[in-house]
Amino acid sequence: MSSTSFAKKTFKSIKGSAQKALHRSLDQHVKLAVTGLSGSGKTAFITALVKHLTTQSDDKNLPFFDVMREHRHIATKVVPQEALKVPTFDYPRALNALLPSDGEPTWPASTERINTLRLAIKYQSASGLRGHFSPQSTLYLDIIDYPGEWLLDLPMLEQSYSQWCEQQYPLLLQHPRVNTSTEFLNALEQLDLNASVDEGLLAHIAALYQSMLVGLKKDTKLAMLQPGRMLMPGDLQGAPLLLFFPVSAQHIKSDEVVPGSNLAHLIKRFNAYVKEVVKPFYNEHFKHFDRQIVLVDVLSALNEGHETLQEQSSVINQLLAHFNYGESGFFKRLFKPNIDKILFAANKSDHISAKHHKDLALLLDSLVHEQSNHLKFDGVQIETMAMSSITATQPRQVADKGQTLDCIYGKPLNEQDWLTYLPPQPPNRMLNKNEWPAQGFEFLSFAPMPNPDKQLKHIRLDHVMQYLLGDKLS
Amino acid sequence: MSSTSFAKKTFKSIKGSAQKALHRSLDQHVKLAVTGLSGSGKTAFITALVKHLTTQSDDKNLPFFDVMREHRHIATKVVPQEALKVPTFDYPRALNALLPSDGEPTWPASTERINTLRLAIKYQSASGLRGHFSPQSTLYLDIIDYPGEWLLDLPMLEQSYSQWCEQQYPLLLQHPRVNTSTEFLNALEQLDLNASVDEGLLAHIAALYQSMLVGLKKDTKLAMLQPGRMLMPGDLQGAPLLLFFPVSAQHIKSDEVVPGSNLAHLIKRFNAYVKEVVKPFYNEHFKHFDRQIVLVDVLSALNEGHETLQEQSSVINQLLAHFNYGESGFFKRLFKPNIDKILFAANKSDHISAKHHKDLALLLDSLVHEQSNHLKFDGVQIETMAMSSITATQPRQVADKGQTLDCIYGKPLNEQDWLTYLPPQPPNRMLNKNEWPAQGFEFLSFAPMPNPDKQLKHIRLDHVMQYLLGDKLS
Repeated sequence: MSSTSFAKKTFKSIKGSAQKALHRSLDQHVKLAVTGLSGSGKTAFITALVKHLTTQSDDKNLPFFDVMREHRHIATKVVPQEALKVPTFDYPRALNALLPSDGEPTWPASTERINTLRLAIKYQSASGLRGHFSPQSTLYLDIIDYPGEWLLDLPMLEQSYSQWCEQQYPLLLQHPRVNTSTEFLNALEQLDLNASVDEGLLAHIAALYQSMLVGLKKDTKLAMLQPGRMLMPGDLQGAPLLLFFPVSAQHIKSDEVVPGSNLAHLIKRFNAYVKEVVKPFYNEHFKHFDRQIVLVDVLSALNEGHETLQEQSSVINQLLAHFNYGESGFFKRLFKPNIDKILFAANKSDHISAKHHKDLALLLDSLVHEQSNHLKFDGVQIETMAMSSITATQPRQVADKGQTLDCIYGKPLNEQDWLTYLPPQPPNRMLNKNEWPAQGFEFLSFAPMPNPDKQLKHIRLDHVMQYLLGDKLS
Repeated sequence: MSSTSFAKKTFKSIKGSAQKALHRSLDQHVKLAVTGLSGSGKTAFITALVKHLTTQSDDKNLPFFDVMREHRHIATKVVPQEALKVPTFDYPRALNALLPSDGEPTWPASTERINTLRLAIKYQSASGLRGHFSPQSTLYLDIIDYPGEWLLDLPMLEQSYSQWCEQQYPLLLQHPRVNTSTEFLNALEQLDLNASVDEGLLAHIAALYQSMLVGLKKDTKLAMLQPGRMLMPGDLQGAPLLLFFPVSAQHIKSDEVVPGSNLAHLIKRFNAYVKEVVKPFYNEHFKHFDRQIVLVDVLSALNEGHETLQEQSSVINQLLAHFNYGESGFFKRLFKPNIDKILFAANKSDHISAKHHKDLALLLDSLVHEQSNHLKFDGVQIETMAMSSITATQPRQVADKGQTLDCIYGKPLNEQDWLTYLPPQPPNRMLNKNEWPAQGFEFLSFAPMPNPDKQLKHIRLDHVMQYLLGDKLS
């Protein structure tokens, strides 16, 4: 070996180690929270995200995702997660439902608990320090899927039991809840708040309240169903801290609570729920999230009617108020969350004509930004998009009396026959009650398309990826 | 009002406050842990305990419970529990199963999770300071019912993954597990421990291991089923820390674990299970227990055969080893538990003739004390008893060829007809394999007796109460 080649080799090896060290330090971690009410398409979104990053990762499929367009993506794979106590998102099962080896594709079963999956995204840096020195970087992406109901418990952190009652109880007397709240309200009338605690009676009334919430969740798209954990109690089923319910706030005078009374126990349980269920979730998970996507099924809410859409809007705005990062921000003081980008995505945009996608995005924007004058997002970006994680329809143009109608073609959910159908046009902003069409809205739901080529199709998933991850892959 | 009567009244009132203050300070709290493998009768025991203390609390019913015999018991009632996050023991439902308003009585459904109930026992003190000054004292009794499997995870706290494998893996190759372990063992053969982690394969093999454990729990009385939480995963279903299993220990060389390999992940998960599941249970609950009753279904174990009884014995002795409170006691160093009395109770003694109850107690004693020479119970009392929380049979004497046979009369479980039956005699000590009768043992199980008077009957429940609570009610 000549001295030159030896020197060369040593230099190479030093360069190698330096690269390795630099490479390690440049690896990044992003925790992406995926949430939305059940039926909003969380499982489908995550499945699509993983599928497109792992086996459909090219510039033709994801042209608006810079790392793909610039051919800098090397490979992405699922790697073991760090959080061993959190169930793993069952990607193989979800993918198998959508792309079965034989039989009809079906939507994957929704998960009702928090679960997670880690991806390692290997890529070439675009430029600068990272591009110059490092042959490749890795972005570790933790996807955390959690029930939207847990997010919606967030405002309870700031409420006393009496404030919570002030907000929740009147809802029970109004349409659409009043149809299902009668049994609970009748039982509530038998309860003497100042009497010595009757645990059996509290448990009985709480069971009626729980079954009312479960029914509303099943049959409606109402957003304000609290306490959220009552809808999926898991190991907490039967624990006293889940056995509470709202009462008429006018019966509560906080300076006159009789110790040991029914009221005293309701207050104790509400406080325990907030302290031992809501707060730990935010401490253990929420405050570590870097990015958040909230999936909203706007079309189903439109189907439900004005009150439901109004409630979704009001809940979103309540949540956004918590993200107020100004000096006095309650949320910031309490948790110092990391989230710097939130995306509200109107999912299932393939269920309407392409030319109305913009209306859908504008409508969601008007829901989200209704109170934007009152909000200051100090350091948090908010974006809205209409998208479709997995398209279930194909566009079809149909000639009708000299006109061309922009229809869609698909197999309506739970039906046998395929259909070419002209979907209604969604409004492009929140309508007030008088503007609401008398006949309401009726958007169909579709089964997933068969994909013999084993490729999933999407609408604007690449835009979503670019917004949520683009800067981390530059 | 005369000045005398005024002075009198003031004195009375001062005396009243002093009594009240003293009374408060003399109230005591006891946390009684109730455990045992599923089917050992935990739910029936707790139901009987509550029923006898609340509505059958007299000296005729509980003559060996001092506070009853001495007529010092005032009243006991269920009061709200402190631990709001722990489900409440469903006493009304359990009682309703045993004493239905109409229809046949049934055994209450077993609970598979931790749950609790608080009783307030008001009593007159026997003598001394408390008796002199205080008209009555209250003992708050927290009953905590938890799955025996959680207790049996205790030894894992001291083990490494490789030590755990050394203990668990050989069991899978022996009778009786070998009948059900084939599928798991075959799958295990496909696993290259040193290959890069294949999460799907680990999950698949873990699922086979889990279904084997669940089957063994259902069909046998084997005690050593680890990890215990795999049998009732609750919110942890699908979490990686439950996705591990034992492998042949000879394949593990702890100094040669390949990072990122299947073996590395099995070790990581085992450690996470111990740290995030087993340890928190002992920290949050176990170390606060004052008294513990372990219910053992010795008769069913005898039915199962020599290996099963042997395993129960070995598990009990392993557990007792952990209660060694000597200077080097691992358990004491780690948790400083409060437990000062443990009772092992051979439940269901009504399923044999009364004259053999002593044999049953001696047999359990021989299981528990087999290794007593090796144990030093520094400050912990251990006792064994044969008892029956709820008697399901009546004694019947039957004349047969000039002999009087001590039979029992009852309705065998899942059968229509009542039966007078001569149960076999249990051995009065642990038998070795050669001594085991060739035909084995066959003890019947019985449905609960109808009790038209709404009173439950027991055997030696008063002895159990006296042992566990007597000193606290003196």
